[in-house]
Amino acid sequence: MPAPKRKTSAGFVPLFDGGIRALNVGVAEFALSPRAHGAGVLELDWRPPAGGDRDLGLLLARLEDDPDDPIGSRVAAANKQAVERILAAKPMLVDIGRAADNLKGLGPRHILHAGPPITWARMCGPMRGAVIGAILYEGWADTPDAAERLADGGGVTFAPCHHFGAVGPMAGILSPSMPVVIVENAAGGTRAFATLNEGLGKVLRFGAYNQEVLDRLRWMNESLAPALGQALRARGPVDLKNLTAQALQMGDECHNRNVAATSLFARLMAPSLVRTSTADVAAKVLEFLEANNHFYLNLSMAASKATLDAAHGIEGSTVVIAMARNGVEVGVRTSGTGDAWFTAPALVPDGLYFPGYGPADANLDLGDSAITETAGIGGFAMAAAPAIVRFVGGAAEDAIGYTKRMYTITLARNNDFGIPALGFAGTPTGIDARRVVDSGVQPVINTGIAHRAAGVGQIGAGIAKAPLACFSGALRELGRRLKVPA
Amino acid sequence: MPAPKRKTSAGFVPLFDGGIRALNVGVAEFALSPRAHGAGVLELDWRPPAGGDRDLGLLLARLEDDPDDPIGSRVAAANKQAVERILAAKPMLVDIGRAADNLKGLGPRHILHAGPPITWARMCGPMRGAVIGAILYEGWADTPDAAERLADGGGVTFAPCHHFGAVGPMAGILSPSMPVVIVENAAGGTRAFATLNEGLGKVLRFGAYNQEVLDRLRWMNESLAPALGQALRARGPVDLKNLTAQALQMGDECHNRNVAATSLFARLMAPSLVRTSTADVAAKVLEFLEANNHFYLNLSMAASKATLDAAHGIEGSTVVIAMARNGVEVGVRTSGTGDAWFTAPALVPDGLYFPGYGPADANLDLGDSAITETAGIGGFAMAAAPAIVRFVGGAAEDAIGYTKRMYTITLARNNDFGIPALGFAGTPTGIDARRVVDSGVQPVINTGIAHRAAGVGQIGAGIAKAPLACFSGALRELGRRLKVPA
Repeated sequence: MPAPKRKTSAGFVPLFDGGIRALNVGVAEFALSPRAHGAGVLELDWRPPAGGDRDLGLLLARLEDDPDDPIGSRVAAANKQAVERILAAKPMLVDIGRAADNLKGLGPRHILHAGPPITWARMCGPMRGAVIGAILYEGWADTPDAAERLADGGGVTFAPCHHFGAVGPMAGILSPSMPVVIVENAAGGTRAFATLNEGLGKVLRFGAYNQEVLDRLRWMNESLAPALGQALRARGPVDLKNLTAQALQMGDECHNRNVAATSLFARLMAPSLVRTSTADVAAKVLEFLEANNHFYLNLSMAASKATLDAAHGIEGSTVVIAMARNGVEVGVRTSGTGDAWFTAPALVPDGLYFPGYGPADANLDLGDSAITETAGIGGFAMAAAPAIVRFVGGAAEDAIGYTKRMYTITLARNNDFGIPALGFAGTPTGIDARRVVDSGVQPVINTGIAHRAAGVGQIGAGIAKAPLACFSGALRELGRRLKVPA
Repeated sequence: MPAPKRKTSAGFVPLFDGGIRALNVGVAEFALSPRAHGAGVLELDWRPPAGGDRDLGLLLARLEDDPDDPIGSRVAAANKQAVERILAAKPMLVDIGRAADNLKGLGPRHILHAGPPITWARMCGPMRGAVIGAILYEGWADTPDAAERLADGGGVTFAPCHHFGAVGPMAGILSPSMPVVIVENAAGGTRAFATLNEGLGKVLRFGAYNQEVLDRLRWMNESLAPALGQALRARGPVDLKNLTAQALQMGDECHNRNVAATSLFARLMAPSLVRTSTADVAAKVLEFLEANNHFYLNLSMAASKATLDAAHGIEGSTVVIAMARNGVEVGVRTSGTGDAWFTAPALVPDGLYFPGYGPADANLDLGDSAITETAGIGGFAMAAAPAIVRFVGGAAEDAIGYTKRMYTITLARNNDFGIPALGFAGTPTGIDARRVVDSGVQPVINTGIAHRAAGVGQIGAGIAKAPLACFSGALRELGRRLKVPA
């Protein structure tokens, strides 16, 4: 499990056979001439560690697992503990309630958003649209213009969902009277929250705030959430780790593809729902679940958050416990660096666009849903969901390639989450910021692509990669905390 | 799509490279000596066509596609039409009703069974048990002993399900007052029927007939069937081809693994069910669907039957339109040989057993469910369901191997049924009896394994292979019908 000491190469793949005459390390072009003259060339895909940054390379060397070194042994022990807590997590959906009643410290005029902290002035289009929608939904303003003035004038307090134990897809806007799913991980003593998924089309999380969006939010608050909550209390908590494990055997990766998990969840809840609600409410809730193949996404996210928070705050640990995007910046948190965010500019995801749209229309990478990848599913479990390449681009083999690559930057395999196409190998789990920086292999994130204007909605789906600077920033801070000499 | 003329080898795989010194055709042992002396040997996995049977080989040659030969061209055209009808099928679940009201010609004392025709005297244990259960359920006798005497004394008329457009898993017992699903394939002008799946444990199809079994059958008749029927009529027909296609993307092969299809079906039906039944009935039906991951099996079977019957009765066609087992014999029907069954002794499936059981406890291969393989799913779509190897034995790669092998004996790929692990290639569809006999490659069938005593139930699951003699028998009859000179 621990990274080998002084490991420096990203993709060392020995391919010796009888015909090798030359060894080429690094830049591939050096091999062209000998190869043109007929010599067999073994190429090492070598890059200098830490992208050639000398200080960072030295820091990396000090942070490597080493039983004979006080720092190296502390990091190793801290990571072991972090990974154990992630693997031991057992997130259960225990209830559904109002955000204001459940998120500790949430003020009456708080609006939570996806990603690391950001001010109204810097927010992207879809996030601004969703803020306007939340203000109208809460009744703090009567018109979009008034809502915008309120947001701009400091009339609401913005904070990341993550600061309140919550996660939100895309814009991730969460206001006090919205319903949230409550996920408890008793093994780790953590609780996590997420909104209920609205479905596709015109939805708040993509920045839409028209009457249809607000009406749906009200129905979700007044009907869907109470009905599901009653059904849940009548039948008892739902084991989300088990549901996710089943869904990974059924072609979901539980980020961009949730059709199996949603179907299993709907089938699981239906009997209790029918017993605890009127026929009309039950039928409408079941119709909503039938029409929304992404309903499980928010449950998957809350389960991932409850899982990872159990590994938070272990001094010396380089394990990543959050990756999140606010549409302007990507932020990363590691276990050993407290509540600090390490940020870098967000990019446009690489993917497939719906007809009529292209990269020029796309918002930068957005949403807390990368919490699923942080927990070892989503893009990290692409090999379990080959059908997703039809949605995000690439071939079925690419899906396997993504997962295999993620094994190189993670510390464990989660054997509760077996991947059929890899002989039931566990998902790559426990991202080690050291390995990311050392190898330059960036965590992959399956993601929806939002239009950059508020309210247009989803225009595609693709793959984003978390910037290396987030991880090197976290390592530098860890170095300071561990008093590694500069 | 047509088989190459005079193709005679089962698995010709050229593997030339610079080191080849010898070519070995057929028996592998001949290659041992040259290989021991360091020579590269290319092996051809060659076997004589038709297992070395000269007359059958000559018949095969006459039946090969050949535009210049009246027989060869007729067979080619007939098979083209058969495959087109299979691919064009669109089986829809249209209603649920009583067998007596829907199966044309079913008499008041008829009992239908799985596989080709068989008398009471020759029936296997599980089938006898299920017959006793059906007689008790119908009220034709009061005790198991009396039921047995009735069956033995000619008091009931036995016939295959297939003779009435129906299919039944395992013992496949179907009596007049039992409810059936009604599947319509408008494109082919066919209708097919199947009982409703009872779940696992003590169930009629494995030959159990105790009070629990009879009570469940009554509940299914009085509650489940009417409720699902009402819900279905309220919402409209369910497209089973679409459900199967989705399930194949979700790890089902729709024979031995149906968890995705069942979940999708339950989620699809739930809203209408809630609107058309009382809360108590709806809740019980939804609980039943929640507890039974095999509910979709019988729908899959009826859909397969409606699909294949559309290709029945095309003069000259060597396409297989049914494979079925009665627990003693395996029977095959081909399109061009009318209603005749071509039978051979059934064997014990090769598989994994539940703790405490082994092959000595197993009944011979049993059930109409091989209709799914005949339609190109089930064992033929194993590559879509790698998780099934944990149930039937083998590794995830084996699942892919089974499907690839079935391409060699089928005439088409059903592109409506894409297999993610094979780059979304369509399932191998349209078994050609010529190719089976020529290559010796037997159709694989995923199957449950029944205890050979009545009522013990399922004791394992595995892979069965349809005997070659069924297919050569069909070809000989086709030769007679086409007046191929002996």
